[in-house]
Amino acid sequence: MVSSGDRRPTIALTMGDPAGIGPELVARCMADEALRAAARFVVYGNAACLSLAQRTCGAEGPWVRVDAQHAPTRPWLDDLVLLDDTRWDDLLSLPAAPGKKGGAASKQWVEDALADALLPTDAPRHVDAIVTAPISKQAWHMAGFKWPGHTELVAARAKAKRSCMVFVGPQLRVALATVHIPLMTLRDVLTIGCVFEPIDLGWQACRELGIARPRIAVCGLNPHAGEDGLLGDEDERIIAPAIAMAREQGIDAHGPFPADTIFSQAVAGRWDLVVAMYHDQGLIPVKLTSPRSAVNWTVGPSIIRTSPDHGTAFDIAGTGKGDPASMRCAIELAVDLVRQRRLAGSSTSA
Amino acid sequence: MVSSGDRRPTIALTMGDPAGIGPELVARCMADEALRAAARFVVYGNAACLSLAQRTCGAEGPWVRVDAQHAPTRPWLDDLVLLDDTRWDDLLSLPAAPGKKGGAASKQWVEDALADALLPTDAPRHVDAIVTAPISKQAWHMAGFKWPGHTELVAARAKAKRSCMVFVGPQLRVALATVHIPLMTLRDVLTIGCVFEPIDLGWQACRELGIARPRIAVCGLNPHAGEDGLLGDEDERIIAPAIAMAREQGIDAHGPFPADTIFSQAVAGRWDLVVAMYHDQGLIPVKLTSPRSAVNWTVGPSIIRTSPDHGTAFDIAGTGKGDPASMRCAIELAVDLVRQRRLAGSSTSA
Repeated sequence: MVSSGDRRPTIALTMGDPAGIGPELVARCMADEALRAAARFVVYGNAACLSLAQRTCGAEGPWVRVDAQHAPTRPWLDDLVLLDDTRWDDLLSLPAAPGKKGGAASKQWVEDALADALLPTDAPRHVDAIVTAPISKQAWHMAGFKWPGHTELVAARAKAKRSCMVFVGPQLRVALATVHIPLMTLRDVLTIGCVFEPIDLGWQACRELGIARPRIAVCGLNPHAGEDGLLGDEDERIIAPAIAMAREQGIDAHGPFPADTIFSQAVAGRWDLVVAMYHDQGLIPVKLTSPRSAVNWTVGPSIIRTSPDHGTAFDIAGTGKGDPASMRCAIELAVDLVRQRRLAGSSTSA
Repeated sequence: MVSSGDRRPTIALTMGDPAGIGPELVARCMADEALRAAARFVVYGNAACLSLAQRTCGAEGPWVRVDAQHAPTRPWLDDLVLLDDTRWDDLLSLPAAPGKKGGAASKQWVEDALADALLPTDAPRHVDAIVTAPISKQAWHMAGFKWPGHTELVAARAKAKRSCMVFVGPQLRVALATVHIPLMTLRDVLTIGCVFEPIDLGWQACRELGIARPRIAVCGLNPHAGEDGLLGDEDERIIAPAIAMAREQGIDAHGPFPADTIFSQAVAGRWDLVVAMYHDQGLIPVKLTSPRSAVNWTVGPSIIRTSPDHGTAFDIAGTGKGDPASMRCAIELAVDLVRQRRLAGSSTSA
């Protein structure tokens, strides 16, 4: 039955590194009827990998394979998942490790999904949001791509001037000022603007999640947020002015706070968002408080993109042990965000 | 009743910054009969501050005030706390902020306790362990002391070549490679030896806690532990060799692991100790998993010294709202450690 009046969001799922746990996660999530009922899904990936993952996980799901290159329209059928299959050979024989071919394939699927997300909303191939299974940064590097990861690629294709990683878990929301850089290069990278952006974009993200007046806590960089200059000057020289900038434009931002105590306050409900200065400062608390359910959300670009908060897990790939919980949460958040944007759009256009 | 045959450990409690919550914590803990029954206590502090704190908290406890300068022996009476009072005037009038006088007084109490801890075990004034209420690092700095904090002072007075901060909570044990330094100076400070020490001392600490074969996980410095050199070289260049050194001497150490995932594994029981490279990397997980019960233990020096994992909390000092939970845990750990050492001593000398 063709469902032309179907108003459900259309969600793109990219399969991630074919040698990682991505195929299993996609197979498991798409075998879930409740999840399938919430949206229409297009998987950007490879039929052989997904079939194997289905068998490994015992996760059967109703798929319709379409040829990516020759499918200008989408044969939507109720409760069927479209597989936008691209013709990569021998992906099944890849070792469970970062490799050039896995890098090239996983990047192509993301590029295809991005291209479709950028189409006008009434185009037949348009997708409303992208949920990405894990890629290997090393594999992308080996395949010769300059993009460190999804976030930067999404921002570039969407021509976003600013973007930021926001992690959303049941107990914590965390925005990152910097992400995949060597820790010691923070000295060159951390500027007032670099700290202001995640405060500003994190505020927008909270608003999009329905929080009317987000309360934002900003971490210090140094132990005890520098202890009044005794332990480094970045907290006063860089972070405090960024918070002042944000407050000037009406954002309820506070800090810099000692990072070792502020997350407990956020978990206790005192803050809607914590802005962390670097990867581990933000992700240690996210993963401790939401070991299976945190979602990585790229905030800034017009395209909605979410992903699980973990990596390819090559060590358990192919065993069927990959936990789809975070991927499922990423899909649910993407569906929610599409709905929220439609509501916001209809209320502003009304 | 003089209890000359009393074999309970003798614990020194230093009162901490007089303008912080230290006096309240000491008053509350010493009002606890069960705690008092476990050891003999000498408080190094000030009678006026403690009396006020007792009234503020409604925490009466049986005290015997002795004059520090003229008490070569200790008039031990069952279940009475000795107050080794030193004659500081006007401490009650100090504002609740870091100050020179509070710094000078709080340091003197620690020095006095350290001097007594270094006496022979049969000396009348000998104490078996020191539990320190919070001092203000800034106040010590204002008072002209070069010691950043307790840990360094304890190590110096005990003439310890090596020392390390180990945090002990019900869910996590964490040793720190570096502590109170500006984050960006890690570049100059982090060496193979600097990473080896907390592995080695952390292993000894676990053994002292009764763990026969400690399993130790070591954090990476960079995001994803450097992702094979893609994100910084310290993980391969400094941390991996330190782990190799530790393994060569039979320590079951592993890593470097991505810091954002390793703490969940430790909480789940996979590791007995995690070695973190810097303050926030170790203390964010400690304080999230043990918001009220983590203890800071100085490992390395011959003197046993523990403390609560929080600071002076000037903002709530004098209100009676200071939470004594972590201080209580610090006292309990100190008592345990004295007992363990006596057992170990009697078994090796037997």
